[in-house]
Amino acid sequence: MLRWLNDKERGGRVNPGEVFDNITVGLQRLYKQRLLPLEKDYKFNQYYSPLLTDGDFASKPMVMLIGQYSTGKTTFIQHLLEREYPGSRIGPEPTTDRFCAVMHGEKEQVIPGNAAVVDPKKPFARLSDFGNTFLSRFEVAMCPSPVLQGITLIDTPGVLSGNKQTSRGYDFEGVIQWFGDRVDLILLMFDAHKLDISDEFRRAIGCLKGNDNKIRILLNKADMVSTQQLLRVYGALMWSLGKVIPTPEVARVYIGSFWDHQLHNDEMRRLFEAEANDLYSDIQQLPRNAAIRKLNDFIKRSRLARVHARILDHCRAQMGFFGKSAKQRKLLDGMQGVFQKVSAETSTPPGDFPPIQLFVEKTEQCNVQFEKVPKLDQKRLDALEETLAKHIPALLELVPREESRMEAAAEQ
Amino acid sequence: MLRWLNDKERGGRVNPGEVFDNITVGLQRLYKQRLLPLEKDYKFNQYYSPLLTDGDFASKPMVMLIGQYSTGKTTFIQHLLEREYPGSRIGPEPTTDRFCAVMHGEKEQVIPGNAAVVDPKKPFARLSDFGNTFLSRFEVAMCPSPVLQGITLIDTPGVLSGNKQTSRGYDFEGVIQWFGDRVDLILLMFDAHKLDISDEFRRAIGCLKGNDNKIRILLNKADMVSTQQLLRVYGALMWSLGKVIPTPEVARVYIGSFWDHQLHNDEMRRLFEAEANDLYSDIQQLPRNAAIRKLNDFIKRSRLARVHARILDHCRAQMGFFGKSAKQRKLLDGMQGVFQKVSAETSTPPGDFPPIQLFVEKTEQCNVQFEKVPKLDQKRLDALEETLAKHIPALLELVPREESRMEAAAEQ
Ligand SMILES: Nc1ncnc2c1ncn2[C@@H]1O[C@H](COP(=O)(O)OP(=O)(O)OP(=O)(O)O)[C@@H](O)[C@H]1O
Ligand SMILES: Nc1ncnc2c1ncn2[C@@H]1O[C@H](COP(=O)(O)OP(=O)(O)OP(=O)(O)O)[C@@H](O)[C@H]1O
Ligand SMILES: [Mg+2]
Ligand SMILES: [Mg+2]
Repeated sequence: MLRWLNDKERGGRVNPGEVFDNITVGLQRLYKQRLLPLEKDYKFNQYYSPLLTDGDFASKPMVMLIGQYSTGKTTFIQHLLEREYPGSRIGPEPTTDRFCAVMHGEKEQVIPGNAAVVDPKKPFARLSDFGNTFLSRFEVAMCPSPVLQGITLIDTPGVLSGNKQTSRGYDFEGVIQWFGDRVDLILLMFDAHKLDISDEFRRAIGCLKGNDNKIRILLNKADMVSTQQLLRVYGALMWSLGKVIPTPEVARVYIGSFWDHQLHNDEMRRLFEAEANDLYSDIQQLPRNAAIRKLNDFIKRSRLARVHARILDHCRAQMGFFGKSAKQRKLLDGMQGVFQKVSAETSTPPGDFPPIQLFVEKTEQCNVQFEKVPKLDQKRLDALEETLAKHIPALLELVPREESRMEAAAEQ
Repeated sequence: MLRWLNDKERGGRVNPGEVFDNITVGLQRLYKQRLLPLEKDYKFNQYYSPLLTDGDFASKPMVMLIGQYSTGKTTFIQHLLEREYPGSRIGPEPTTDRFCAVMHGEKEQVIPGNAAVVDPKKPFARLSDFGNTFLSRFEVAMCPSPVLQGITLIDTPGVLSGNKQTSRGYDFEGVIQWFGDRVDLILLMFDAHKLDISDEFRRAIGCLKGNDNKIRILLNKADMVSTQQLLRVYGALMWSLGKVIPTPEVARVYIGSFWDHQLHNDEMRRLFEAEANDLYSDIQQLPRNAAIRKLNDFIKRSRLARVHARILDHCRAQMGFFGKSAKQRKLLDGMQGVFQKVSAETSTPPGDFPPIQLFVEKTEQCNVQFEKVPKLDQKRLDALEETLAKHIPALLELVPREESRMEAAAEQ
């Protein structure tokens, strides 16, 4: 994939991995300087969602690989990175015996599970719920790679059959589900040469329910069989998966041989190349999409924080010197009117407002007293305005546009 | 397919269609001369199954084609036969508006439904149950063709969507089911260019439950799309069919363009040719398999008729002049002993005997009186012996062996 990325770069393309990093740093800075103070003043975290850390912005889109053992998952990662990741092992028997998050880092380094889950810069804290047996089977492999600048890859131990699978000593399916909920793409890898969908694998796929839209299927080693056999295998695969994955939409399948070696049967070379191309584009799009999603989330959050501050400031201004609690009660009971007034006075679109019910409940729960709310600092508000009007659009400019990718592809 | 058949013949191969005819004629003759007299003497039909007619031996293996409209069913039949069948129409709009059984006949001829169902030589008598509206939408097309010497083809009206389908005025799904139970092969035809599995078609496929093993899938017009598109379509087809057809075994799919024109996209020419080859072999095997099945049925029936005659003859011989009904009662009550004696005296293997219960019940129901049973004619028995020992094996010799087909294929 690296070669493929570079190939595009020669045509003047930007690496979305780098873009992602730039946007991350930009958002971290903007958040801390412009949004966080406002959130703190008005207890945004108690009303809506926790204050953000650098780690929340930095976490990269993740791609998880799952499949029966020896289908070529680890080899595929090596092929994508054009290098081994520290601690990886490849072989025809079940080799990978742990979950491994392969991440970008300037130095090669293996971080054991217990250390990885306490690192606030990594999104794995909650994995500690799966206990020590699991944590001894989890690690983070850091290594420098342009591909990893854009994404994090999750290598998994191959699915085994029957007892062997259940005797792992930890909740394998639970872990698959945990990652399934958090990753951006799930690659199910199959071996055209030895197609096998064991009951265990079926169950693992079952754990991905609700994340079906993230699933892509890789039919690997497609060059190891004749074209007719390949079509049989592919048909059998789709036939079986259609029964396991309940959606009517067909999961996208990429057919090919995803490693560095020459094709064995190269009758379908053109197809395999086109498929690999599509797959790399799909993966390459992830940081771009993640970047846009983060920018989008930032904007939504800013607008909510802004209107939240305005509402509380409006309520504060209504409070007299006496009968405070009665006044607060009255304001809370007529919150709809308050929202309308704030909307009119500050020309805030009604769509920005939080649900009335939620606002009233949280105010009571958190024991917020309107008269103690700080006065709204106009400078803070102006700073946020500027961010929304200037800084965010500037960051958005960094994101390579879909169209330009299309154009570039068409020009070739 | 004709060209393909002839191509094989040049290598010294026999046309299984002709073989089938020879075996049919042979069995008809043997049955009438050697088995039927014995069956009549001992009321075989009242005990086990109706006496056979020429028609029962002559009915050829049938292949039914179903699919959405305009997928190319009629074109495929024309392509197989290398000729039009009388009354056929082809076009991009829904064209075939009736069920048509395409059969061998020296002269071209169209027999309307009402006439076809009363012809005892044709296996369509029970179709009259579907009523007049249906019969006006059913016909038999006769024409000379070496392919039709081996098989009968059932062309069907394309499945339409929604109201149009239900307003046909007869039980479309019922008819599909009727044929599904009787044919030897069901070809579901799909159009790679315009893949569409309507709810109506799903229901029609649902009617084939229990006959899933007869289903083959044709993905037609595969050359009208790019290779990558073709794989998408094929995958989507299997994904959806896997949900409709409940068996875990994958239905065999033949991918190609089943008509006489040049390939549009010929990147996969070799595959398409191999697929067509496999399909023709599959179809060509039908008469062979049907011939073997018929020989097998004949042998089973002969052995049953033989032991049946021996049992009744044995019972007859036990009858004295007085107390006949008491004696008959005693024999019937001790039928297990009778069976053992007959088995020992005539060295008939126990596996040939009918179920005791059935024999006793039928004797009572049909009011058979042992003393009135004719004495067993040894000449008849010898004639049947000779048939089993000499004539049937001679007919079996006519059936081209699977191995020689394999060998012939390997030599090429
Ligand atoms: N595209 C390919 N074509 C043919 N063989 C391959 C291909 N990719 C990998 N292999 C071979 O398959 C075997 C298994 O590879 P690998 O260890 O990467 O699989 P894995 O899915 O990671 O297995 P595990 O689940 O046990 O970790 C190795 O012998 C490797 O050389
Ligand atoms: N292999 C093929 N490649 C491309 N076009 C084809 C092919 N076979 C048939 N066609 C075209 O598809 C159209 C429909 O063909 P045809 O009438 O045989 O379909 P059908 O399934 O019998 O339809 P109906 O259900 O309406 O009877 C015709 O225009 C025909 O020329
Ligand atoms: Mg591995
Ligand atoms: Mg037709």
